[in-house]
Amino acid sequence: MFISFEGTEGVGKTTLIRKIYEYLVQQGQDVVLTREPGGTPMAEQIRSLLLSVNHDENMSNDTELLLMYAARAQHLQQVIVPALLAGKTVLCDRFTDASFAYQCAGRGLSREKLHVLNQNFVSHMPNVTFWLDAPIELGMSRARERGALDRFEQEKVTFFEKVRAGYQELFEQSPERMKRLDATQSPEQVFAQAVAYLK
Amino acid sequence: MFISFEGTEGVGKTTLIRKIYEYLVQQGQDVVLTREPGGTPMAEQIRSLLLSVNHDENMSNDTELLLMYAARAQHLQQVIVPALLAGKTVLCDRFTDASFAYQCAGRGLSREKLHVLNQNFVSHMPNVTFWLDAPIELGMSRARERGALDRFEQEKVTFFEKVRAGYQELFEQSPERMKRLDATQSPEQVFAQAVAYLK
Repeated sequence: MFISFEGTEGVGKTTLIRKIYEYLVQQGQDVVLTREPGGTPMAEQIRSLLLSVNHDENMSNDTELLLMYAARAQHLQQVIVPALLAGKTVLCDRFTDASFAYQCAGRGLSREKLHVLNQNFVSHMPNVTFWLDAPIELGMSRARERGALDRFEQEKVTFFEKVRAGYQELFEQSPERMKRLDATQSPEQVFAQAVAYLK
Repeated sequence: MFISFEGTEGVGKTTLIRKIYEYLVQQGQDVVLTREPGGTPMAEQIRSLLLSVNHDENMSNDTELLLMYAARAQHLQQVIVPALLAGKTVLCDRFTDASFAYQCAGRGLSREKLHVLNQNFVSHMPNVTFWLDAPIELGMSRARERGALDRFEQEKVTFFEKVRAGYQELFEQSPERMKRLDATQSPEQVFAQAVAYLK
């Protein structure tokens, strides 16, 4: 079982994943909790390239997309695929849907680029994806409270509106895989909604 | 004019590029000398991920290929394309042919993966490519003399034999673009052969 968690900044992904992790472990499952970009020491190095703010050189959109998939390829080979083959449940904070929402819908990169990367470099897709959805301003105010903003968090509201619309599009395309959670609810309510889907 | 230089380790690329650079500058051309992976501060950071030896985590072949193209996308946008649009001559130490030779022929990655990356993420190809060719052992002994070996230089002779065969395949496919230089000759002879082609 491969479960991913998606959504814009500050919607409560981290809190939900921890709760789901504890819930599944209590049920006796062998669970791997991981995240993207990252999930291995090498992929985390790629993550820091992606998130760090560089005032001297703008990262091209193609570079951003390819770095995401470089980290993903490493994460798949080192962590996700071995865990799935061993019968473990994998909980992953973001996966390919984030690339669609951020790089295609948000940055405007062509869907064809994403498509060929998914076709050629992604061997396993999540069985279930929880999309935590909330108005952008709500999430951004939470993200600001957490401290210094990374390169993505520094984007403007209009960017995140496009990202959210990207998630909406994916949700409409894959209603069986993607489950929308109302992230304006309390963390307990969001968790209860997610567990109801899992059952 | 976009000229790339290819070949296995220790065949004398750096020496030849410097000579060609000086020659073209003396001819009054505006010349940009650059290299891959790298060529911008951000792409050089990706280069160091690619070349550094990590004993704790093997880099997956897909990750290696995608990091190469992430660096290339940045290099194209920041350096190569602006220079070409400004009418400059670009001399580049390695380009897409190296990805074919090292990642496909050497590592055994599918040509389809390389093809889709070239189709979607490479806007400009070299007009001329100089392939410096020499028996592997000759180049490796030169590379060893230079000091500590990077992640690629630590590969075995059989790997480099495959890389060389990859260059041979490209040479047969694109005889008009690729010019084979006999790198067992003296640096002066190799340079003279390259200049003869350029004229």
